[in-house]
Order: sequence, then structure tokens, then C-alpha cells
Amino acid sequence: MKFTCSQKKLSNSISIVQKAISPRSTLPILEGIFVKAYKGILKLIGNDLDLGIESVLEANIEEEGAIVISSRIFGDIIRKLPECEVEVKVSDNYLVTITALNSQFQIQGVKPDDYPDLKEVKEYEPVEIEQSLLKEMIQNTIFAVATDETRPVLTGGLVEIHNEDINIVCLDGYSLALKKGKIDSNTEVDVIIPGKTLNEISRIVDNSDEKINITIDDKHVLFDMGYTRIISRLLSGEFINYSQIIPQNYKTRVKIDAKSLYDSIERVSILAREGRNNLIKLNIKEDRLIIDSNSEIGTAHEELPIVMEGKELLIAFNSRYFMDILKGIGNEEVYIDFTTNISPCVFRPIEGDNFTYLLLPVRINA
Amino acid sequence: MKFTCSQKKLSNSISIVQKAISPRSTLPILEGIFVKAYKGILKLIGNDLDLGIESVLEANIEEEGAIVISSRIFGDIIRKLPECEVEVKVSDNYLVTITALNSQFQIQGVKPDDYPDLKEVKEYEPVEIEQSLLKEMIQNTIFAVATDETRPVLTGGLVEIHNEDINIVCLDGYSLALKKGKIDSNTEVDVIIPGKTLNEISRIVDNSDEKINITIDDKHVLFDMGYTRIISRLLSGEFINYSQIIPQNYKTRVKIDAKSLYDSIERVSILAREGRNNLIKLNIKEDRLIIDSNSEIGTAHEELPIVMEGKELLIAFNSRYFMDILKGIGNEEVYIDFTTNISPCVFRPIEGDNFTYLLLPVRINA
Repeated sequence: MKFTCSQKKLSNSISIVQKAISPRSTLPILEGIFVKAYKGILKLIGNDLDLGIESVLEANIEEEGAIVISSRIFGDIIRKLPECEVEVKVSDNYLVTITALNSQFQIQGVKPDDYPDLKEVKEYEPVEIEQSLLKEMIQNTIFAVATDETRPVLTGGLVEIHNEDINIVCLDGYSLALKKGKIDSNTEVDVIIPGKTLNEISRIVDNSDEKINITIDDKHVLFDMGYTRIISRLLSGEFINYSQIIPQNYKTRVKIDAKSLYDSIERVSILAREGRNNLIKLNIKEDRLIIDSNSEIGTAHEELPIVMEGKELLIAFNSRYFMDILKGIGNEEVYIDFTTNISPCVFRPIEGDNFTYLLLPVRINA
Repeated sequence: MKFTCSQKKLSNSISIVQKAISPRSTLPILEGIFVKAYKGILKLIGNDLDLGIESVLEANIEEEGAIVISSRIFGDIIRKLPECEVEVKVSDNYLVTITALNSQFQIQGVKPDDYPDLKEVKEYEPVEIEQSLLKEMIQNTIFAVATDETRPVLTGGLVEIHNEDINIVCLDGYSLALKKGKIDSNTEVDVIIPGKTLNEISRIVDNSDEKINITIDDKHVLFDMGYTRIISRLLSGEFINYSQIIPQNYKTRVKIDAKSLYDSIERVSILAREGRNNLIKLNIKEDRLIIDSNSEIGTAHEELPIVMEGKELLIAFNSRYFMDILKGIGNEEVYIDFTTNISPCVFRPIEGDNFTYLLLPVRINA
């Protein structure tokens, strides 16, 4: 096996497939990158059995073949090389020689035969979505994915594709995040994609309006960007019927600028985090919202102008979860709807319905 | 005590004085910032007894007084406030109330009476130096300060002021770094300044050609930038007579581009660091320098064109120390002078003498 290619392209492909490689795997061969040179292209694969990433790049293939190379060492070497042509040559005993300008490295590779194949996903009506939309939908919901494994299904995000509608829903015991988007499709399918996969995808796709193809079968999902393909197993089981737990009515509605509210809660949290559970109290008045926290160190108090509809209310939250949601909403005005101080509050856009967030309050004696 | 001032200026001053504050001090009062409002100015002090930093800023003083406030909480609050006027008010029982736009915080302060005074440094012919020169001289020598305490005097940098010449010298068991600069002075004084102090000063001074005043007495040094004053104890004891250990002659002289050499050694180190002591071998030939390393993982080999004078030589180094020195030299050509493969090599500028670095080789059986 022997090929030459550009340092920049090779380095870029390595960075992408490394996102699927765990530094310590129970299967040592999975700590390596699978490299295959054939038919004028070079294919790199990283795989941790749950998630596999494949990156294809142009290369000048002088001799076809395959090898598995230590991900860390191979990545470090290629990244540190200057922008130039890199030659990679593998001898019969899997010794890899990397040559570039003034540099030559020799490292022992591993026989590629035992490297597990990426799952094949049966091509079943792929769905097209803009990369920037997918990225944004994931980034603004992923924080609500459950991190503990008591209900494994909640460690993933529910992706619902109903013709031109796509929803991503994440929820744990405290909060729920739902983002809606529009796509071009005639498919109806609901799947649960592991949180780790969603996370890595949001890092690999860029902010462009280029499309990414999503193909789903019984057990796997394939995200296809042409040169990069990401294949992940799906989580099995029933997701929670989330629409049932989103209150439709409210007794108190607040209209507020999400960014100002974020800044105020962040400041109040400086003192709240000294206490045990980041507790902040929201006192909703006719024309203003008062946010308080106190701990052994001292007290913090913020007042923000609001437009309020309905009844005044005193309610408490964990500031960290509250801030996660406000960060997802970003720099716009939002409705926050409350019923009682022991039932979830709901964050809704002023216009349309492209997001819904829900947050459980903390019970207080007040 | 009561004052108002700009959030931005207060935040900036807090960041400066915090450089002298240890998060966990044996004397709890030193975890606070000393704040004094008097004569139309506000003075902040951070102090860990070895190093004290004072920052003065404009403020509207409504009532004079002093207080010590938790550095972490005070800093977090002021930094998170928007750009606005901040009011700070201290009541008789040292309760501090911070008010700004929509925000109000109350934290318990500490009686200022027990806060240790900053040492007074007798004004003894201050020396003026450009901030950018001082910053550069420290940054390019500090890495050679000893980190272990077996010879306490080596945990500091020797600063020699001989009329218009200023030298900074740091050395540990493996390397020596000497930078020379020019100043306006008629003073002759040698002092040893703790490494921590030098480090913090290099972070506080900026890259401008504005001057900073240095005043030295028996036990302390004062760096005076006007609004900011840094006072540090000096280390007592005799510094090593460093000029005696710098070889004046060479048997092999190499002329090489420091940046290319740095890049090559960095790459070779990817494999060297898998071994125990970052060992790299330099094989100096007539027209080229060959750099090799090997470990269980594999081998690395680099070749660079050089201009060589004298005898060919095979010599080994710890790549980490070698790279520290090359980083200090930066983006220029350098002479590296060798005598034998068990005696130190010396890095000298092609023209002038504004730096000298010395590095001990590693003994190898070759």
C-alpha cells in the first residue's frame, strides 16, 4: 500500500474520524484509524461500535491496500507537518513509513482484517436537511438529554420526521427541549439517536445551507455529507409521549427578553451556586420580575421590566437548567407560561412554534 | 464608606490585584481584596505577603472608608455586570451593598484593620524600563527558573542593573537563559526576584513603549506603573556565578533557523515523548542536521540544511528543554555552539549579544 496526498486534507479527515474514536477502547484495534487506499481514493474510518465515521479524500494511490494506524500518533504526526504532500507507505509486515519534506516517521501499524465493518444502512428514502438547520436544532436541544442511564431511552434525542416537519426532542427529569424545522420529505419515521451521536454531528456539520442526507433503517441511522458519512446505532424502546406533558394553558404569562433574563440569572447565580442546588426565586409582579438568591455568603437581587398577563406568582428554579434553556432561545423575546409554583413552566416563541422548552420548578416553603 | 465608579475600570483593577491573591491562604483575610476609598480615589490591594499588587482608579467617593471583600465573589459580581456605573456602600457592620442598574448584591465584608500593610520600598534611584522590553525579557527567560526548592535562590531570576545595561538570568540544573536589554540608569544593583513575581509582572505589563519604574531596597522591589504598583520581596542569597559556566569556545558551530528547528523537534518529540525522557538525538553533519528519536511506538527522523563549522558531532537532548529555548529565540537564525557531547551547548544570536541560552545534553551510549 502506498499513497500521497495533501497534508491539509489528510489532517482534516483525521480530525473528523477521530470524533468516533475513544482513547481507551476495550477492543484495542478501535484505538486506531482504519485507512484504505483504493480506486483513486483514500478512505479513513473511526469506529467505537456505537458510532462510526467515514471520511473519503482524494489521494494519489500508487498501490492499493489497507492498514490500521494508532489514531493519536498518526493524528499528531500529520497535524504537526507543514502544508505539503505527504507520502504514506506500508510494508508487508504493516510497518508504516510517513515521509514529507524533511520528515520521516516509521510506526508499527496493525493488520486491518480484524477491523469491524461499518454497518450498512439500507437506503430507504433519504431525507435532506440543511446542515445549519440540523446543527442549530441539535445545539439547542442536546443540553436536555439525560446523562444518567436509569432510563436509557432518554440518553438519546427523539427525531420525528413527519413529511415536511422535523422535530428534535430531548428530555430528562427536569427539563424538556423541543425544536421544530422544515425539510423536503415524504417520509414518516420516529427514531431515537444517542446523545453522543447528536453531539458529534453538531460539531462536524457546518453553518452552511448545504444539504445532508439522513437515511434510517431498523437499527441504524446514516448521515451522509458526501465526503463524510456518519453511521450510528439507534436506541431501542419507546420514548416518553412528550406532548402529553407540555401544559397547554397558563395562569401567568410573562413576556421578556431572553438575553437580559439570562444575564440577570447568571449574576444572581454567583451567590446561588454557593448554596446547594443553584436555587433562585422568581417573583412575578404586575410590571416586573424580581429574581433573588441567597446563601451564607450573601444575597443577590435583580429586577427586570416585563409584560405580564394573569396572576402574580412566586416560583423557584435551579438556575443552571433555566440558563441552559435561555441560551437555547438566544437573543429574542420569549413567552414564559406558568400555572402553579409546583407545575412546569413553558417557554414559547412570541410568533410561530419553532421551539418549546419546559422546566420543572423547585419546591420551596414560602 | 460609599463610592460609585465605572464597572469596566473596577473590573479591570480587580483582575490586576487578583494576580497576587491565592484562592486558599493560611491567613483567610488574604483571600479578600482590600478596598479603600479616600481623597477622590479608590485603591484596591491584593497581597499574599510575598507579592502585593495595588491598583488605583478614579471613583466618585461619597464617604471615605475601607473594607476587605471576598476576592472571588466580588470579582465574579463586578465582571458579570454590564458596562454601567456601580455603587458600593458599606454599612457599620461591614455589610457590603453593590448596586448597578437592575442588580443589587449584599455580601458580608471583613473589618480592614487586620489586613497587612504593603511593604514600603525606600525610593532609591528608580530605574526606568519600557514595558514591552521588560515583558519580552521575562517571557524569554522565565522557563529556565528552577521549580524545585532544593536551591531556593534558583526559584528566582537574577536581575542585574549595571548603568545602562539590564540582564535577566534564570537557570536550573539543565538550562540557563540570559537576556540583555538597554535602559536609562546610573544604578548598579543585582537582585533576585521570585519567579512568581516575574511571571505576574509579565502578564500585567503590556506591549507598549510606556515606561515602568523599578525601585529596589534591601528586601523588596517595587514596580511602579502609576495606577498599578507591584511590590515583591526579594530572594536572599548568592546567585550562581553564571558567566563562569557559559563556555566561551566551541568545536562545532551550527547556523540554523530557530523556527524550522523548533518545528522539526516538535514533530520528532511526538515519538520521543512515548519514551521516558523526551530523548532526541542530533547528528551534526557537514551540511545537514539529522534529528532522530525512537520509542516502542516507532521512529522519527528529520533532516535540516545547516551551515556548519568545525567537527561533526552526535549529541542527545531532552526535547522539551530544547524547545523552550527555541521558543525564546523565536523567528530568527541562531548559532548553536557545541564542544563535546557531554558538555553544554550554547545558543547565541548571529549579531550582537542580546541573548545567551545554555543547555546540558543527555548522556547516551552511542
